[in-house]
Amino acid sequence: MPRALYLAGPEVFLPDAIEVGLRKKALCAEFGFIGLYPLDNEIVEGENRDARIYAANLALIEQADAAIFNLSPFRGIGADAGTAFELGVFVAQAKPVFAYSGDPVDFCGRASAAFGAHHTPEGGLCDAHGFEIENFGNADNLMLDCALKSQGRSVLRAETKLPLGDLTLFTACLRQAVIHFGL
Amino acid sequence: MPRALYLAGPEVFLPDAIEVGLRKKALCAEFGFIGLYPLDNEIVEGENRDARIYAANLALIEQADAAIFNLSPFRGIGADAGTAFELGVFVAQAKPVFAYSGDPVDFCGRASAAFGAHHTPEGGLCDAHGFEIENFGNADNLMLDCALKSQGRSVLRAETKLPLGDLTLFTACLRQAVIHFGL
Repeated sequence: MPRALYLAGPEVFLPDAIEVGLRKKALCAEFGFIGLYPLDNEIVEGENRDARIYAANLALIEQADAAIFNLSPFRGIGADAGTAFELGVFVAQAKPVFAYSGDPVDFCGRASAAFGAHHTPEGGLCDAHGFEIENFGNADNLMLDCALKSQGRSVLRAETKLPLGDLTLFTACLRQAVIHFGL
Repeated sequence: MPRALYLAGPEVFLPDAIEVGLRKKALCAEFGFIGLYPLDNEIVEGENRDARIYAANLALIEQADAAIFNLSPFRGIGADAGTAFELGVFVAQAKPVFAYSGDPVDFCGRASAAFGAHHTPEGGLCDAHGFEIENFGNADNLMLDCALKSQGRSVLRAETKLPLGDLTLFTACLRQAVIHFGL
């Protein structure tokens, strides 16, 4: 029985969301996996559609043996909040997680560019509002990157900025999954 | 033995992060709880500090019976990614979650204001990049709001915008927790 991978990321919001999902699933199949793509776009209109999407996605997560996360910045400097939430669910379930970001700039660089940055007398880094900027060279908030690190991996990062639907690093994550599962 | 509440939110990045934590813990004690505040600011400098913060926070989460999340927008239109991650961990552990946002505008309104909005021929709502905007009246991404809804609650929202460290809605969450635990 092939392993099932949940395919998390903000692609569900793209105009070609369904096509990207089909391409991701086809790549999964090439590598011997079943891809489980979030059903946001397939849940019919009507009452409590948000709750029905949520329940459908959690059901897919439950079925999944592992997951691949697109942590590319979405509508701002950081990963999509729904994707971050789902990473937490997988970590709590002690399932393997694989992740990538299409942005070569680290979180600190993005926050500094968008919100300013200065060093504090104590040696820390703060934005123009005085809010601390994490400066660990991570792709995003340390809770996300360290979820990967705690499993002996890291968030794969692009060398040059990639479009949200680019699947180069997604494919690299599939290769990691092949190694992880000894396929 | 009092119940322990994990206190999640981007307050760890405020200049007065430690003071806000102490005030939150004092409020928890007033309501009969033990407050567990993330240790980001108490982990000493040195190698792999990010991984040590991560491990310390996950250990606190493990100890906690429930959690209160500050889902106020942070450095952008949405909740802090680390906070969203932690909400996922709690939901996966089937622990009660309570949450608030200091922004009275819903996610759709914030996304529309920041990234433009137009209706598609199919009746959906998209931003200027053509990315779908969730329009459910939720405080944030549906995965966050519906995590609360699935437990019969919702993200408590401010009537007028509140500073990140304001504890009015945090206190309202404590009242919900008192009811939930029958104290």
